[in-house]
Parts: sequence; structure tokens; C-alpha cells
Amino acid sequence: MHRERFYTLTASCPDQVGIIAQVTGFIAEHQGWVLESSFHADDVDGRYFMRIEVKADSLPFMLAEFRTRFRPVAEALRMDWRIADSAVKKRVVVLVSKQEHCLYDLLARWQSKELDIEIPCVISNHDTFKGFVEWHGIPFHHVPVTPDNKAQAYAEVQRLFEEVRGDTMVLARYMQILSPALCAAYPGQILNIHHSFLPSFVGAKPYHQAYLRGVKLIGATCHYVTADLDQVPIVEQDVIRIDHPDSPEDMVRYGKDIEKTVLARGLRYHLEDRVLVHGNKTVVFR
Amino acid sequence: MHRERFYTLTASCPDQVGIIAQVTGFIAEHQGWVLESSFHADDVDGRYFMRIEVKADSLPFMLAEFRTRFRPVAEALRMDWRIADSAVKKRVVVLVSKQEHCLYDLLARWQSKELDIEIPCVISNHDTFKGFVEWHGIPFHHVPVTPDNKAQAYAEVQRLFEEVRGDTMVLARYMQILSPALCAAYPGQILNIHHSFLPSFVGAKPYHQAYLRGVKLIGATCHYVTADLDQVPIVEQDVIRIDHPDSPEDMVRYGKDIEKTVLARGLRYHLEDRVLVHGNKTVVFR
Amino acid sequence: MHRERFYTLTASCPDQVGIIAQVTGFIAEHQGWVLESSFHADDVDGRYFMRIEVKADSLPFMLAEFRTRFRPVAEALRMDWRIADSAVKKRVVVLVSKQEHCLYDLLARWQSKELDIEIPCVISNHDTFKGFVEWHGIPFHHVPVTPDNKAQAYAEVQRLFEEVRGDTMVLARYMQILSPALCAAYPGQILNIHHSFLPSFVGAKPYHQAYLRGVKLIGATCHYVTADLDQVPIVEQDVIRIDHPDSPEDMVRYGKDIEKTVLARGLRYHLEDRVLVHGNKTVVFR
Amino acid sequence: MHRERFYTLTASCPDQVGIIAQVTGFIAEHQGWVLESSFHADDVDGRYFMRIEVKADSLPFMLAEFRTRFRPVAEALRMDWRIADSAVKKRVVVLVSKQEHCLYDLLARWQSKELDIEIPCVISNHDTFKGFVEWHGIPFHHVPVTPDNKAQAYAEVQRLFEEVRGDTMVLARYMQILSPALCAAYPGQILNIHHSFLPSFVGAKPYHQAYLRGVKLIGATCHYVTADLDQVPIVEQDVIRIDHPDSPEDMVRYGKDIEKTVLARGLRYHLEDRVLVHGNKTVVFR
Repeated sequence: MHRERFYTLTASCPDQVGIIAQVTGFIAEHQGWVLESSFHADDVDGRYFMRIEVKADSLPFMLAEFRTRFRPVAEALRMDWRIADSAVKKRVVVLVSKQEHCLYDLLARWQSKELDIEIPCVISNHDTFKGFVEWHGIPFHHVPVTPDNKAQAYAEVQRLFEEVRGDTMVLARYMQILSPALCAAYPGQILNIHHSFLPSFVGAKPYHQAYLRGVKLIGATCHYVTADLDQVPIVEQDVIRIDHPDSPEDMVRYGKDIEKTVLARGLRYHLEDRVLVHGNKTVVFR
Repeated sequence: MHRERFYTLTASCPDQVGIIAQVTGFIAEHQGWVLESSFHADDVDGRYFMRIEVKADSLPFMLAEFRTRFRPVAEALRMDWRIADSAVKKRVVVLVSKQEHCLYDLLARWQSKELDIEIPCVISNHDTFKGFVEWHGIPFHHVPVTPDNKAQAYAEVQRLFEEVRGDTMVLARYMQILSPALCAAYPGQILNIHHSFLPSFVGAKPYHQAYLRGVKLIGATCHYVTADLDQVPIVEQDVIRIDHPDSPEDMVRYGKDIEKTVLARGLRYHLEDRVLVHGNKTVVFR
Repeated sequence: MHRERFYTLTASCPDQVGIIAQVTGFIAEHQGWVLESSFHADDVDGRYFMRIEVKADSLPFMLAEFRTRFRPVAEALRMDWRIADSAVKKRVVVLVSKQEHCLYDLLARWQSKELDIEIPCVISNHDTFKGFVEWHGIPFHHVPVTPDNKAQAYAEVQRLFEEVRGDTMVLARYMQILSPALCAAYPGQILNIHHSFLPSFVGAKPYHQAYLRGVKLIGATCHYVTADLDQVPIVEQDVIRIDHPDSPEDMVRYGKDIEKTVLARGLRYHLEDRVLVHGNKTVVFR
Repeated sequence: MHRERFYTLTASCPDQVGIIAQVTGFIAEHQGWVLESSFHADDVDGRYFMRIEVKADSLPFMLAEFRTRFRPVAEALRMDWRIADSAVKKRVVVLVSKQEHCLYDLLARWQSKELDIEIPCVISNHDTFKGFVEWHGIPFHHVPVTPDNKAQAYAEVQRLFEEVRGDTMVLARYMQILSPALCAAYPGQILNIHHSFLPSFVGAKPYHQAYLRGVKLIGATCHYVTADLDQVPIVEQDVIRIDHPDSPEDMVRYGKDIEKTVLARGLRYHLEDRVLVHGNKTVVFR
């Protein structure tokens, strides 16, 4: 992560000769100083992925002009592309239920500016963390979810997210399954932390399943939310060793430590525009 | 692992007050010097597990007498138990196909006496490693397996295993599925290395499945062979990080490094009588 | 960790025949139900270590009587020993400076009762976290440390620790070096998290040293505080992979994630009486 | 690793605007198809590093012509550069003493073409592995090293290396310290595996040192050999968890598993021209 203001270009396109040359040629033509660059060719699908950071003040124009001038290059290469500005903080809405570990962890990183983001609000189906969140000066919305009010509740979540102009929604152990409609509204914008090493233990109580199965490692998975948990694009995963004396409750406790770390890593990759979704997979330019 | 000769008592029994006291009291009564001891209570099932190493020359009797005298203690506690003698080398029959990594790894450990075992023979459905195995002075048996001769082939494997009085069969990337009859004949005696982090990717070509699923870590699992891969007792597992540039072939290559290590660790636990099977789970006293 | 009330006996003594038998015989004689037990013989030094959890209500007497009756057994074996009661919460005083990660992490664990302890106060040489700590209902003491007032400041820290009857002092990235006198006053009671994989990078700015040296992994070490950092008893360590693009600032950020996890693990082992100090080493019965 | 023949350009130069554009522009101009590319800017030193794989048959010329045409580009950028041809197998001379694990591991990888190299000979100060090496059809040279004949012995090693036109020398647990002259003759060409997590435990018997220090993880380091072990460029490192029951002998055994894996990974990076040395550090484009 660089200190100076920079623009991050991320793009994918059909692979062909000369992609890097055309894109970096365009940047060099304008005296753009490349801070970091990553490229990946998916041989199987013939698709090309890239991420380039350009120092903002090395360019003779502002972001809007950068986009305008780059458009013809991108169109010639049939690119999906975007350019982000490091000076514009991402607006991250956090959803939480009753478990504290991911919330405390995210707020610690936000408080110290390790995560240099705006958190315009926290939404929860419980009021457990109202005081804690508000003490940090962040608005807290209690949106209860019951079997009967789901449509209404998710509509309210969406309304709040739109109202605060959220970029990213983070499910920080939010123990409700979002509606397919809500998932579909924000593809590649909703990050969840699942408490198993996917594709293992997709169903309920994964640590209990892991205990019954007798595995020697348990894991956590940060992924973009889509309607089908079996096909979610995985952003980051990690595991921790367990042992025969460990009860399901011990596993829950161990699991918390990897859940919060994996979520934080995945979120950082996302916020720094390091993640490019490619079907049910991801390219992560770490 | 100790240098002096020792006896290893492993046992499990219903949990109750005073188990350790009775067992270690018996040992102390005969001036037995305990080198290492491990105990585990499974709270859920109310079952107790233990492993105790006693220095052989601290006892006033030999192994047969140890067993005779211990029997009443074990019966009073309704134990499943066994006592092994570190001076009696285990006889390990290795089964292999065409991949070299586990075989080279096991023979390196055997050659240097890191694994202090007998390898009375290697059996393979191919003759790829005949010269290599025989160079080490180990008999090699080529037992081809075809769709038509399976019953006959596994009968031959079993005959060879019996003939050399094998204790343990190790499937060192043996790419055939043993018959249910053979599995049933040697419960807790056949170790396999599966090239995925079970329960993920149970079927064929697990690395290819992992590639298609877009996971960020791949794994290997050492387990006792039973008829149902979904319920095998897992002895050891580990994982390795992969990344978006890695092809299925790269994963196969990375996977080899954890396969051989996980198999070697699991085999060592087994040979040192550190593994107690408990239904579809294991207690591993490392 | 068990739910029922239990007593934890930890002890070490010269190794000899029959130690386990005598100790567990004593427990069994009183119908004590052993929940968990661990034993270790240090062959080199001829010293024996143990930790036994006994269910409180299985015994016909209370803790004081347990101690009285056990004393002769312990004396005959020339033991260093103690018995802790799981119903008595440990009193942990946290010292912190200006970095948030360990403090947030510890308070999250305390808030959810994952760490079932009392935090009678937090002490800091800065007032950065006064509001945050007090919001949690925990007294906060600002004890500035300057080159001129060190003796006085540490005397105040000690006075506060005594006043609240602290059991354990945790230096949660407290960026001051305690006086030798304070270290000597509480051997085995002060836990620190050092931001390197000891014995590497003992001096100042370890991440910067790691950057200059070009290592491929960085680490953190939880240890008991003694006057000499080169000889501290290490309780827990872990590492995380870094890469050539990572600046010293990136390493500081990665390091935070292992520092807080390693500190929390080490603290838990300590609080559950799983750590026995043995010279400059530890036995940790996980 | 790609199947088709390709050229690998590795280079470093002072950082400036337009480096990628110039280099990839040159490649694109000749219709070069880029398979893989990696770039890194060292902000502190202002130096730029790159590695680019170009499909051989996409270019209208052969390697010699590629070099000739690229030279002016490289000179304008004041580059240190080289271009390797994937069709030319590297010639790796292995040096070994009496420990088997790295040798077996390397020969297994060579035998299966996982490492697609020539091993023109193995050199050892003992004759332990003569038969094993020769069985593989590889010449074996026994060059004893005594306190008195060191200069002569290393001259012989150098003569053999030159005679077989070696590219890379691998010290696969070769328990002799090469002379400064030999180190200086082949900078960036001699890889060693050191059995500790450098910079810890630089001296003799690192596992024994680790035991005495009471660390909770032990490690291994693959590095380029230079005269000063404190400043060697580190290529790869890894660690493994140990525990209080582990003796120094157990650590030696655990250590073997990471030594061989870390050496094999480091060697692969080196052979695929993924390692660029930068003072006492390395850039490794994995």
C-alpha cells in the first residue's frame, strides 16, 4: 500500500498479443509512473487480467480525463475495466449478529486507520452491539429479521445501504442468509466470512460437522455472496490445526481467530481492488 | 522416540474413576519406569484412551509375562488393549503405482533408519519401480490389476501380505481401489494417502476439482482404509497454499510435497502405536 | 476447557518410578474424577512435569482440604506444585501503549467471556485508549513514563497491580522496558508479546531489521518477562509469510495479526495453568 | 510452468517512467506472446525488477537474434539482463555428504521429470551414496575433504563443475563450508539449504541450539552461498511446529522434512529464473 495518491486500473479482456504494451504504452505516453503492476493470463479460458497502480500526480490530468482517454484503448481490447482513486475512501457497511470477534477486529483496524475506510453504519438483527458501535461514532441500525418479515427486513437493509451510498457490504458473522434478490443487486460487492474451509461443510454448524467427521484442521472462507454457496467466488481461505481433545466449542473458539483474520485479509484485497471475479473463481493480485 | 527398548501399552475403555491410578499403579508396583504417557477422555462418548511407554529393562519380566499379569487389570476395566515391543520391527508392505514421490520418500526414511521398519516387499500394479526397489534389496512383486482380474489380483496382494507376515499395508499413491473384502480383512492396518483435504473432493481427480472450484489451499489426507471413503478414520492432514496462476498440473506438483509428508507423519504415528481408532475418528497421541 | 468446576493441579519434581501412580492414586482414593491429564519427562534434566484437572464435585472435600491432604504426597516427591480452582477468575492487568490491536482483541475475548477473567484495570503510558477502556467499565490508569521518572512510574504500576490484587500482568504492546526489579517481583506472572520470532531480531524495530535482512517469514513471540530478553521462557510463537513487495510498514501490519493471536494463545495457556516454566524453557500442556 | 517452449527475460534497472511499456512494446512489435510477466519496484532503492516469459514460436527470430535486438532497449534502460531458453536444460551438480533426505528428494523429482534438468554428476566428501547415485545413471565423484586438503579438494570440485559445464551447484546437506574463493567464483549459482530459520542459529548444530533456547518452531533456509552466512541472499524459508517432548534428535527428524521441501522450492525458483538477487536480499517472482 502506497502513501502517495494513486489510481488503480483493473481490467480483464480476451487474451491477445500486445495487451500489456498497449496499456502501459498509453500510461507511459502520459508520463504515468507505475507503482505496482500485476498480470495474469488464464490459459484455459484465454482471458487476460491486470491491475496497475499509477501515481496520481505523475499524470497531466485528473481521474475523469484518465477514464475518458483510456476508454478507446479499453474498447479496442474489449475490456471490462474500472479505475479507482486511492483518495476516495471506500464506504463499507458492516452487518453483524451477536458474535463480537469480527466486529471488534474490523473496528480496531478502522480506528487505527489500518483500514482507511468510511463505515457509514453498522446494521444488525440484534441490538447487542449498539452501544459499542455508537461509542465509536458510527450509526447503528437494528433491523430484526424474523421468519415472517424477511422481505421487508432485507428491503430495509438495501434502503440503508443505498441511503449511505455504500460501496461494499461486509457480513461479519451476520447469521442470516440474504435474499437472492439482495445478492443479485450487488454482485462482487458483498463479502461474507463462512466458518468452514469450503467446499467442506456447506450446511449449518460447520464446526460441529467437522467434529463429527474427525478432521485434523478446520478453516474459514471469505467469499463474495451469491445465491448458491456451492459456487461462490472464494477470495481467501485459511486453516488451523485442531486435535482430538478439542470439543466443538473449542473449535468455535479456534475458528474465531481464523475467521476474523481471513475476513480482514479478504476485505483488504477487495478494498485495494486486488480481486477480479472470474466466474466462480477469483484472481487475487496480492 | 526413545533409544532404549520399551513396551507401549495402548488401551481404551469406558470412562470411570481411577483408570490411570489402576494402570500406572500396576506398572509402579513392578518398578516400571514410564518414559511417556498420554491420556484422553472423550466426554461425549464416555470413553477413555491411553498410551504408556514403559522402559523394558525396568520391569522384572518379559513381554509375555507383562501381558499375562496386565490381563486382569484390563479385564476389570473392560479394556481394548495391546502391548507392543519397540525391539520388534514392524513389517510394512508398500503398494505403489507409477508415481515416485511417496515411494522415494519412504525408502529414504527406511534406508537411513529414520523409519526403523522391515519392508518385506513392495507390490505394484506396474513394473515402473522394479529396478529401483530391488536395488534397495527389497523384493518387488508386479501384480497387474485390470477390470477383469480384480478379485484375483487382490487375492494375490492378500496372499503376499500374509506370506511375508505383514503388519501394515501402506498405499503410497496406489491408484486402485481395494476390494471391500480386503479392507475388511485388515481394519486399522491399511494406511492410504488421499490427494485432497477430506471431506472435500472425494471423487476422482481431486486437484482438478480444486482448480475448478477455485479454492486457495489444497490438501492431503492420511487415513485408514475402509470401504466408505466418506467415513474413513483420518490420521493426519495438511494443506498448502496455491494461487490463481497455478494450473491443475501445478497443483499436482505442489500436492506431492504434502502427500509424502502427510503419509510419512501418519505412518510414523501408526508405527509408534500413537493412533487409536474410535469409530470414524482417531485419537492421535503425538 | 470444561464447563464444570474443576481443580487444576500442576507440579514438577525429580523423575522417579511411580510418580503418576502416587498422584493419581491419591486422587482415585478420594473418588476424584480426572477430566484431563498430561505428563512429561525431561530426559536430559531428569525432571517430571504434570497437569491434572479433577472435577470439583467428585471430591469429598473443598480446595483447602485438597491442598492439605495432597501436601504429604507432594513433599515425598519433592514437588513444586500448585492447585487452581476454575471457579476463581484470574485477575489480569493489561498494560498498553498506543497500538490498538492487542487491546481490542483482548477486550473482545473478555467481553464475550471467551476469556473468563477479571480485568481490574488497564494501565498505559498514554491516554489514547482511556475512553475505549472506560466504556467497557474497566478502570484506566494513565502512568506516563519519561526518561526521568522510570523508577517512580514502575513503582506506580506495581502499586496499582498490588492494589487490585492482580494475578497476571499482560504487556499488550506496552512499548516500555520494565525495570529488572519489577520483572523479578513477578516471575512467571508477566506475559509480553515481542514482535519478532525470537531469538531473531532482539533489538529495536524488529520488522525493519527483518526487512533489511530479507527474510521470507516474520514472527511473534509470547514470553514471560525476565530481565534478559535473550533468555526469556517462550510460551508461544508463530510466523506469517511475507514477500518482496512488502515494505516495513506492510510487515508491521501483517505482524499485528500474529502478535494478537500469539498473545491470546499464550495468555490462554497461562490462565488455564498449562505452562510450567523450566529454566529458560517452558512445558506447555496444550 | 508452461509446456510450450518459451524464453524467459529477467532484468533489473534503475526505476523510471515507461520501463514496462518499452520492454513489452519491443516484444509486441515482434508479435511476441507473453505467457507470464511479473514486475516489482523497490521504492527504497529506486530499482526496478522484471521477469517475462515469451512463447518461442510467437517470435519471428531465434534466441540469438532476440538478444541482439533487445540489447539496445536494455542499454537505454541501463539494465542487468539475461534471456533463458526453456528448451535448454539447466545442468545441476549436486553436492552431498552422508544425509539422504535431500538427495533422494532431488533424484525423485529428477527421475519423474518434475525437475526437468540434467544432473551431470554428484560430488560427495563420502562414498555413502555412490551406488545409489550410479544406479540412476549419474556419475558419482568421491572428493574427500580433510583439514589438510581443503584447497585441493575445492579445486577438484571446481574442476569437475567446469568439466561438466555446470550451471548451478546445489549443496544438498553438504556438510563442508566452501572456500571464499569458490563462493566468489559462482555468485548466484550455488544454492545451499541451511538447517535453521536464518538469521537464528547461524553456528553449528542449529537444532541443538533451538532445543536449548526453547523455541516453539524450527525452520530451514535456502540461500545463495556467499562468504558471510550472516548476509546470504535468502531464497526460501519455512518452519515447522515442535513441542516440549521433542528432543534435539526429534528436531533433526522434523527438520529434514522442511529442509528438503524448502531446498526443492528454492531450486525450482532458481531454475525457472524467478530469483533476482538484490544485495543481500532476493526478489522471487513466484
